[in-house]
Amino acid sequence: MFKHAQLESVKAAIAQPAHAAMPLHARIQRAIRKLIVDGALGPGKPLPATRALARSLEVSRDTVEAAYAQLHAEGFIDRRVGSGSFVAEMIEFASGARLSRRARLSRNQAPNLSRRGAAMFQSGGVRERLSPRPFAHGIPETRSFPLALWERLERQVRKDAGTQLLLHGDPQGMEALRRAIADYVNLERGARATADRILILTSSQQAMSLCANMLFDPGDRVFIEDPAYYGARKAFDAAGLECIPVPVDGQGIVADRILASPQPAKAVFLTPSHQFPTGVTLTLDRRLALIEWAMRNQAWIIEDDYDSEFHYAGKPTACVQGLDPYERTIYIGTFTKSLFPGLRIGYVVLPPQLVKPMTVARTLLDGHTAPMTQMTLARFMEGGHFGAHVRAMRGVYAKRLDLLARLVRDHLSDIVEAQVPAGGLQMPCLLTGDLSESRAIDAAQRVGIELLGLSGLHAADGGKAGFLMGFAAYTPLEIETAVRKLKSALQAIG
Amino acid sequence: MFKHAQLESVKAAIAQPAHAAMPLHARIQRAIRKLIVDGALGPGKPLPATRALARSLEVSRDTVEAAYAQLHAEGFIDRRVGSGSFVAEMIEFASGARLSRRARLSRNQAPNLSRRGAAMFQSGGVRERLSPRPFAHGIPETRSFPLALWERLERQVRKDAGTQLLLHGDPQGMEALRRAIADYVNLERGARATADRILILTSSQQAMSLCANMLFDPGDRVFIEDPAYYGARKAFDAAGLECIPVPVDGQGIVADRILASPQPAKAVFLTPSHQFPTGVTLTLDRRLALIEWAMRNQAWIIEDDYDSEFHYAGKPTACVQGLDPYERTIYIGTFTKSLFPGLRIGYVVLPPQLVKPMTVARTLLDGHTAPMTQMTLARFMEGGHFGAHVRAMRGVYAKRLDLLARLVRDHLSDIVEAQVPAGGLQMPCLLTGDLSESRAIDAAQRVGIELLGLSGLHAADGGKAGFLMGFAAYTPLEIETAVRKLKSALQAIG
Repeated sequence: MFKHAQLESVKAAIAQPAHAAMPLHARIQRAIRKLIVDGALGPGKPLPATRALARSLEVSRDTVEAAYAQLHAEGFIDRRVGSGSFVAEMIEFASGARLSRRARLSRNQAPNLSRRGAAMFQSGGVRERLSPRPFAHGIPETRSFPLALWERLERQVRKDAGTQLLLHGDPQGMEALRRAIADYVNLERGARATADRILILTSSQQAMSLCANMLFDPGDRVFIEDPAYYGARKAFDAAGLECIPVPVDGQGIVADRILASPQPAKAVFLTPSHQFPTGVTLTLDRRLALIEWAMRNQAWIIEDDYDSEFHYAGKPTACVQGLDPYERTIYIGTFTKSLFPGLRIGYVVLPPQLVKPMTVARTLLDGHTAPMTQMTLARFMEGGHFGAHVRAMRGVYAKRLDLLARLVRDHLSDIVEAQVPAGGLQMPCLLTGDLSESRAIDAAQRVGIELLGLSGLHAADGGKAGFLMGFAAYTPLEIETAVRKLKSALQAIG
Repeated sequence: MFKHAQLESVKAAIAQPAHAAMPLHARIQRAIRKLIVDGALGPGKPLPATRALARSLEVSRDTVEAAYAQLHAEGFIDRRVGSGSFVAEMIEFASGARLSRRARLSRNQAPNLSRRGAAMFQSGGVRERLSPRPFAHGIPETRSFPLALWERLERQVRKDAGTQLLLHGDPQGMEALRRAIADYVNLERGARATADRILILTSSQQAMSLCANMLFDPGDRVFIEDPAYYGARKAFDAAGLECIPVPVDGQGIVADRILASPQPAKAVFLTPSHQFPTGVTLTLDRRLALIEWAMRNQAWIIEDDYDSEFHYAGKPTACVQGLDPYERTIYIGTFTKSLFPGLRIGYVVLPPQLVKPMTVARTLLDGHTAPMTQMTLARFMEGGHFGAHVRAMRGVYAKRLDLLARLVRDHLSDIVEAQVPAGGLQMPCLLTGDLSESRAIDAAQRVGIELLGLSGLHAADGGKAGFLMGFAAYTPLEIETAVRKLKSALQAIG
């Protein structure tokens, strides 16, 4: 009844150690179901008699009987008194090889996405480096993270809360964490936040995507910096917004262009602490001018303060949110840079009238963030460990930036000019000679060095050629080795 | 120079123990900045001389000088040689009380959301019970979860992987977890999954929202069950889709209605294992008919298999995904019901051509899921603990369902008729007498008992009145107490 191969495949399936916990009859039932579903046993084909199969498999007849009964209950087999069991005559459970031409076409065709789906796919998304190599940007030092301390706090939280944290959490975020974040941003960033105006999210990317969808309709105009952070631009593009690029100079985004713009816009997106990618800090007078503009135009300011913790020359200017008395500013923060990317916690400080709508939207999009992780982070912050970690890392990163700037000056000065930033996790370098950006990046890639080209971050052609060099995640030795490697690679093609 | 209250507020700010780790000059700088930003120190107002303030605060003059220097660098104060320091004459940093009428209006107005944002807000979102009381539905037993075992696996994962898991993870999900899930759904659900066709997400809600946006454009038609799971309907509504309700009878969704529909549709949404809320199982012939329909119409089947782990009468039928040779089915699974809601891990099994687009979309929406949690779950599954937990819970829930069904029969039979389901975490009850659904639910609510009304889950008026009673999360004593309470509450108004 069964071909030899079929019997062997049933035998193999029931012997699998991974399935040892499952009753024998269930393993047999699944193995036969698979033969039917895969088309190896066609409609109307007879199954072996229970007694025969029991003997072949060296199991009891009851076991086989239980398997057949379940197959029958599911509708996969017919059982006829006196003549045995047969694969149901319902439909051909076709394997790939037996599909009609039309069905094969159906399997191999383009994914037929929606228009917005296709746009998102074509954007390429926001890919992050999984195993960062110099000089991948935007990645903090994680190898020295105080993991034992984190684990201890986690144990404390579990001890105190027990299984309570296994349940659904408040979609706005755990109150203890929202309080800790409010304290932090008020103190360190000059924000005006309260716990009830904070919404905990997965990442700043989720914050941007949420803003893009909740505040703007397709076709709405939004000012963005030029050059711009690709994650923000892609989030706005995916939501169908029209992004209007506004140039960035040594004082940040040129606010006058926005004030003088004849066409209205619904918002401006800013990275004011360290503009991405130039690293410049937006001056106070421009911040204030943009706040007035937002109030007059009932527009929003979306402030992405992604790595403001790491400012090396002086202190970072107070955030726009704290300067804005009209509550037109949405402040986006993240722990991806200040702690570690795998944490998956970001947040927004919202104007009061947006708290409920944004929280409701999050319940529709993906629910909420794991309570356990939130409570561990809250304790890390309350205990002063967050402040201490940021201070320690600030010292480490400042030294790494100094080193990188010196090495680039010493070894690459005939090719690039370093634009040493006041803060952040990466340094932009402008190409000064004839070498093209794409050739430089390709040459670096070939020797295992990551560089992010600057010209692709500009809205139009003609942006300054160069690249970003991340430094925070790499040891002095790694930085030095990589700069030397980069030097030979660039000289070889120069 | 400073009023007494201003000096006191600076003193209080610098004495705060939470800020003890911050240098003294930074604490003074922030306290003064707050006075300026809050409007307590207006433009042009003089600041105390450094010497005088140092004396008042009992700190060194250098400390005050450092604070003033930073305020100056940030643009908050002007310093004039010989005449001291003044709040910058830039703009009024207005407090709420000093705002112009227009600005006050700006703060108090409606949130001016986008059309899609307003629609999401008005949907009310998907609210989950934070502290479940009987008979809140959809919640598993968590109080007996093997937390110590989970913690041990977590420690093992940390020991093996170290800080590697602090970095960004693969946006598709960690491969070990995808492999464990593929093994599980193939074995237990008769799916045809491979690790490379699985995408790890936060929740099944995220899966539905992702499908709604990636596969359909606003106005596209989608068949949904009637009555329907509210989370799915809201996700589709939020994406602007037109949901076409299709009635559910004792064999699941009436597939003939779909086959006979003159108007095309892009998809059908199904909860085939235990239809939500009726609990019925979709029969095999209807599954196969819908698979053929999807192939012929190049439509998608979105299969939400949210609580198929818990089937008490016989085995659950194999999932639609495993029966579909044309790869038109998207299978949605979640650990919210089978493990615990606070875990925040769900997944989809995708047709091959959708894997890349969906993964790219997730990087734009929120990035990826925490690697640490994924690896712990992978180990929980690989070690056979997941299977063991599900089996144990299946036994517990079967008993709780039996108990609830018996108690409802014994105590509430003059009011409702229990529709004992073959599986799942809740039991629907239909009102048989004159009592209205809303009065029954309100009366229950007043005595602390949660019921979800059934008629609101129907697309139109005239759906059967009744309610859902969740049973999985409550002990026999809690169930019994709550049924008695419900009985008195309903008799009192009957």
